[in-house]
Formats: sequence, structure tokens, C-alpha cells
Amino acid sequence: MTSTQERPGVASAHDIAQMNRDYTMFSWSVQGASTPMVMTGGKGSHFYDGAGQSWLDFSSQLINLNVGHQHPRMLEAIKKQVDQLCFAGPSFATEPRGLLGKKLAEVTGLAKAFFTLGGSEANENAIKMARLVTGRDKIITRYRSYHGATMGSMSASGDPRRWPVEPGVPGVVRVFDPYCYRCPFGKTPDSCGRECVSHIEEVIQMEGPESIAAILVEGITGSNGLIVPPDDYYPKLRALCDKYGILLITDEVMSGFGRTGKWVATQHWGIKPDIITCAKGLTSGYMPLGAVIVNGRVADYFETHMLWGGLTYSGHPVSCAAGVENLAIYEEEDIFARVDDLGAHLAARLEAMKAKYACVGDVRYKGLFSVLELVKDKATKEPLAPFNGTSPEMNALAGHIKSKQVYAYSRFNFLWVCPPLVITKEELDAGLDVYEEGLAKVDALLGAGVAAD
Amino acid sequence: MTSTQERPGVASAHDIAQMNRDYTMFSWSVQGASTPMVMTGGKGSHFYDGAGQSWLDFSSQLINLNVGHQHPRMLEAIKKQVDQLCFAGPSFATEPRGLLGKKLAEVTGLAKAFFTLGGSEANENAIKMARLVTGRDKIITRYRSYHGATMGSMSASGDPRRWPVEPGVPGVVRVFDPYCYRCPFGKTPDSCGRECVSHIEEVIQMEGPESIAAILVEGITGSNGLIVPPDDYYPKLRALCDKYGILLITDEVMSGFGRTGKWVATQHWGIKPDIITCAKGLTSGYMPLGAVIVNGRVADYFETHMLWGGLTYSGHPVSCAAGVENLAIYEEEDIFARVDDLGAHLAARLEAMKAKYACVGDVRYKGLFSVLELVKDKATKEPLAPFNGTSPEMNALAGHIKSKQVYAYSRFNFLWVCPPLVITKEELDAGLDVYEEGLAKVDALLGAGVAAD
Repeated sequence: MTSTQERPGVASAHDIAQMNRDYTMFSWSVQGASTPMVMTGGKGSHFYDGAGQSWLDFSSQLINLNVGHQHPRMLEAIKKQVDQLCFAGPSFATEPRGLLGKKLAEVTGLAKAFFTLGGSEANENAIKMARLVTGRDKIITRYRSYHGATMGSMSASGDPRRWPVEPGVPGVVRVFDPYCYRCPFGKTPDSCGRECVSHIEEVIQMEGPESIAAILVEGITGSNGLIVPPDDYYPKLRALCDKYGILLITDEVMSGFGRTGKWVATQHWGIKPDIITCAKGLTSGYMPLGAVIVNGRVADYFETHMLWGGLTYSGHPVSCAAGVENLAIYEEEDIFARVDDLGAHLAARLEAMKAKYACVGDVRYKGLFSVLELVKDKATKEPLAPFNGTSPEMNALAGHIKSKQVYAYSRFNFLWVCPPLVITKEELDAGLDVYEEGLAKVDALLGAGVAAD
Repeated sequence: MTSTQERPGVASAHDIAQMNRDYTMFSWSVQGASTPMVMTGGKGSHFYDGAGQSWLDFSSQLINLNVGHQHPRMLEAIKKQVDQLCFAGPSFATEPRGLLGKKLAEVTGLAKAFFTLGGSEANENAIKMARLVTGRDKIITRYRSYHGATMGSMSASGDPRRWPVEPGVPGVVRVFDPYCYRCPFGKTPDSCGRECVSHIEEVIQMEGPESIAAILVEGITGSNGLIVPPDDYYPKLRALCDKYGILLITDEVMSGFGRTGKWVATQHWGIKPDIITCAKGLTSGYMPLGAVIVNGRVADYFETHMLWGGLTYSGHPVSCAAGVENLAIYEEEDIFARVDDLGAHLAARLEAMKAKYACVGDVRYKGLFSVLELVKDKATKEPLAPFNGTSPEMNALAGHIKSKQVYAYSRFNFLWVCPPLVITKEELDAGLDVYEEGLAKVDALLGAGVAAD
């Protein structure tokens, strides 16, 4: 591992860690139990810690750093915009804002973008818009979902992170997920009648079709288990929305911008939502930015009606410039074709892991958006850690991966593989080899009789 | 006026305006009624429009651009951080994050900071924290207030912008404001018994003291009329909170970071809140950033309890680096002393306007945070435009100011004077002269018999 902190700052790594620990608070953490790692820099699929050690980023930070760490074109584009114009209020037209709006309309086939700073705010505004446009109040969302931490987005989420802050905003109705591995309707591929869609129509009937503004779903469920829907799920959901005049909002915060090899995940299934929310891969995190992208129906409504939403930083010039450059990189570096190729290789390796290790119950993937669902027993599908909990086996797995300086995202009984889209095949294989070592250890712990490597 | 677009982008001003209009949506607007101005650059108290014309920014954009447009030190600090490390996930310790946390603790006298992207998210998280720390649900806020547009922050606001999205989050109880010019209790300075505080105790009794987590107020009310409280308001409010174990949260998004000549407005009155929320002047908008700054009681609680909040961009390295530099500029350029000096001059001129123009009912100010409250009649105090509305007179006033290329913020019957803190006395006087021309026109329209200049 190379020491690569080329341009040290004023503080030592020790002081950096201590200042962060003493004076700042960390997300979703018991602060006293946190031992934050120092990051000093990065390049491509790697970042550098306070000791100058290089880590393979197998999670693209929070599944957002799609073009990898410190991409030279991103740095240049940001610095250029900083020199030109760092800030303009949200009522001003600026060049990067206009260019990004135009490009987003082009790649999504929708009409207009409203810019926020992140995914939470994008979903907040999408919900507001849907209510204003339809004159209806209720929003249908799914249980296994995360849409953000602000009260509107958190209320829309099914994720247990909503529990401590409920009751939230009224009007959210939750339905089940297209979770074929553990079908909530007790079906198998043979007996399935797409109850994951048909039960939504039952809910619509029971809630009152005229009361429902929108169905809000993640393009592909992210942090609640990476659930890839069956191929006819979206066409059926789109038809259901059309039947009742309900807007379809897809949250592409994680699944958008090349993560699955398309601009947005629903392009795999040939449908268009009415509203797309996005963030993360829109700028790969280089600058904070989110967006609500709306179709003609929604855009037309707000031509003559007030858009009751706004924020100081809407259309921030530097954030928009980062978005413009990031989208250009996706195209000019042919990133999506790369995701297709690497994704096929990743899929093959994941399927091989499922065949080889007793603890791998299911693998789900689309492009470089993938997860292993881990179990104590393949036959009973007993999770390796309970819902909203952890286990010694999961901790051992995560600990092994960390000990090899691979940065991975795990939660409950899920282990994700979501590297930067610029990762090389060799880096991808190296990380997956470390995962396999960990899986072998889990199998050994479970006494499953499968030989470790 | 000089043409100063030194480094034109690829698109013409016309194309920039058209792309923004066609492909992006504007905050708090009927889109078809918007005619967005193009901004191409700026310097100090001025920015440049698409025609290369220079505008005097008398509103610091959205009362956030405290160090003025394109401050060279800000640009350099941002570019340096971009080269070093553009993004790290929220679980990582980074140098700018640690330095900014430490500095914020120092200047506020509180303990720790949790970083968000803007004021809305800061207030969302402050409310969450207050509920978790106290185990209580209700939040007391004021009617004339704005705390942000996400559902939690909007529910906490009294501003009419909440109306179209209600019902919001349950548990908000609203009280009246220390609005001496139009005392909600019918009092005058002579008869006043500080009912603006005492009625809050009555509300606490009626709502149940054990049910109230926090009182959330703007340090000095911003977009709802810039209401400066009487000098004993905060000491009394602090005592009330202490009496019932209620947390005092002050929203210093607008009033913080030198706008009033102090780090936060409550420092004028010698009290410390339990939680401070901030954004805007924290980075002067150069990078999106907000923060929740908490005292020892709150910080200690989260040492051993989960902080149920987070966001991908919490502690964004570039945003934090912008904050570090911005705070250094306040100190090293002696900005607060400048605000004191210019503020005294501004106060004298505002008082003279109130004496001279029939339409100026009241003027309120603290540092470079100030407003004129306009009336049709000084005796009856009839507003020049109704609450949540506009009027031909207000439009004429705003139109005159705009015609002189002064960028000002007006709303209802209020007209703000909130220039960048780096404004020169000459620039300040020039803008105020334009305001006076407009006020004379209003007086003429009202037939008040006061001669126009």
C-alpha cells in the first residue's frame, strides 16, 4: 500500500481524528462508540487514510462516488466554475444551471428539473409537487425503502430509521415490495401472480383512488436490501398509476446515473415515471446536489400555479457545474458500457459465490449495483442477522473485509458490492476475493462444512 | 456601469436565460410569470447580469452572501480543498470538518456541531435531537417565523408558505412574536409587561410542561419582518426554558455570522441557547452548508444514545473548508467591527427616513440586518401591502429600486437592507439614496403631501 498523502494539511492525522471526535457529530451513530477513520485524499477506486494507507472503496462511499475519487476532470470543472461564479440566488439564471437542466431533460426524456441539495430534499419537493398537481393528499410508498432523513422523506420511508421520529407527516400508506427471495405473499416463481403489484390496486381501492397523489418507489431499492423487481413490475405499476391518475415518482438517488448501466434504473424496463428524484451520482458527491425532474404534466401545472418550494442553494452554480461535468464524463468515458461489461463479470462471480458458500442465500444485481443476502441456512433462509440488527457472524464478515483495507457497506444480513464505476476488472476481482475469504469464514463459523479458501 | 464578464462561458446570455426558463424550475414562483435575470459573475457588493451590467446587491442574495461576491480568499480555499479531497462519506474524519467543528464550538461557546447542507436540514435535525434528548414531543415556535421548506422545518414555521402543504408534522404549538410595532397584546412601551414572554408560560402550562421538548425561535426574525426583540426578551425566554427543562433552539440561519455584528444574534443579549442552527453566512453561500451546534447536555446524551439523523453530504470536505475560511475572514478582516460602524450609520439613515417619509411606519435594525416596514398611514399603521399580499405601491417601490440596478428584497409591506458585510460606506449610501427616491414616489402615490426629491 502506497503512502499518497501528497499535500498534507496543517493538522496531523491524530489531531484530525481527535478534533472530529471532540467537536463534530456523526450520522446514525452512538457518538461514544464511533472511531472515525481519517480520510486525507483518494484516486479512482481508492482513498487514503490518516496513516497514508490505501483502501479499496467497494461502496463508492455512500454509493454515490460513481466516477471515483478525485477525478481530474471533476476537479478542473469545479475550480473553473468557482473562479467564474461561486454563488447566485435561486431566482437567477446561470449557465451551469441551464446546461444541467437541459441535459437532464435529454437523458431522462422528461421536461424540467428543480434543483435541491440532496435526495431528502428532492423527495420532499417531489411529494409536495405531486400533492399540488393532483390536489390529492396520500402517497403510497414501500416498506423496504429509504427516501431521506428530513421529516417528509423520512415519513415516506419504510426503513426502521423512521421509528424514533414518528409520528411523521400524515398521508403515507405503505405497501409490500417485489422481494421475490422472501415473497410477502408466500409465492414462488411458479405460483406468482404479481401480487406485489396487484395488492397495490387493492390498497388503492381501500384508500380511495381519488385520495392518492403518487406512488413513490426507489428505482431499485437500495439500502433496504437491493431488491431488483421482476421485469414486468414497472410496466404493471405504470399502468396502475395511469388507470387511477396517480403520479409515479421514482427515487433514483442510489440507482441513477450509471450505477445500473443506465441514466435511471427504470430505463431497463422501458417505462417513464412522471417525476424522477436524484442526487448522489448526479455529481458523484463532489458537490452537494439533488434534483426533481418532472414530466410535461407537472411542469405545465407550475407554469400557471405557484411552486410552493424553495431553498437558498437551489441551482447552486458550482453544484450544477459539477453535475454538467459528471454527466459529460459518463458519456465521454463510455462509463455505461463499462458498467455493462463489469456488471456481467460481477454477476457471474456473485452467482458462483451463491453456489459455493452456504451463507449466501441470494445475490441480486444490476450493473454495479449489487448485494449478497446472507443466511444461516440456505433451506430455511434464516437471516445471518435479524431485521434491524446485527450478529457475530455479520460482524466477523465485516471485520475481515475491513482488515484487508476494503471499504464495504453492510447492514442487517446484507453485504453490498457497489464500487466506483471506474473500477478496473483487477480491482473488482481483488475486492471480491476478499469478500470470498470472509464468506468462507462465515461458513466455518456456521459449521456448514464448506472449506475455507 | 462596467462590463465585467471577464470569462464568458459557452452560452450567450440569451441562451442561458432560455435554457433556465425551458429546463429548470424556480423556487416559490409561478414559472410562467418568472423572468429570471442572468448572473455571470460578481465582485464584492456587486454582481453582473447577462448584459454585463453591474448591480448593487442590497440583499446579499438571500441574505447569505456575507463576505460579498467572489471573495478571493474564499475561491482559493475552496480550490485548494478540491485538489486535496473533494468528498468523504459522513462517517469519515477530515481536516476541514474537524477544524470547523472546533471553531464553531469556540465562537458559540457550545460543544459540538452536526453538519447539514442548509438551514432546513439543520432545523430538522435540531428538532429531532431535542425530542430524543428530552423524551418530549412538542415544539413551541412563533407565528412570524421561517425555518425552512422541508416538512419538519416547514411545520415548525409560522410563515404562510406552510399553508399549502399542511397538515404537517404533529406537535408544533405556535406563540406570538415580540413585535413591538404591532404588539399582539395591544400594549405600548409604557403598558408592556413582556406579555410576549409571559404568554408563552401560559401556553406551556396549557400544553403541559412535560410535553414540550424545545422552544425554537429565529435569533432575530428574518423574512417575516425582521423583528428585533426587546433587550430582556432573551434573558426571560432563557429563564423560562430553564424553569421547565425545555431546550432553547435559536435559528441563526439569517441572523448569524456577522450579520448583526456578532457570531450569533443572541450574543447581543448575553444568553446561550442549548442548540444553534445555522447556514447561509457560515459559508456565505460559496458552498452549501448548514450546522446544528449543540451544548454539553445535548452532546453528552448522544455519546451514549443513537443520533437518529444523517445525510450523505454531512461534513462535506469542500463545504467545511469554505466554512473554515469564511470564519477566518470574519476575524482577520475585522468584519464585525465594520458591521458595528456601518450599522450605526445605517441606523441613523433609517431613522431619518422614518422621520422624513410618511410611508415608513417603522425601521428595525441590528448591524447590517435591517428592514423598513411600510404603511399607508403612519397613524393607523395600515400596511402598504396586506399580510401575504402585495400592492401597487409596493410594486412601484420595488420597480424603482430595480430600475436603478439595486438588488433588494421586499415582501408584503417590508423592504430589507441587508448588503454584504464588506460593502463600503459609499456603496451603502448610494443604495439608500435609491431607496429614498422610491419612498418619495410612494409618498407621492399616497398623496401624502411629502415632496419627492
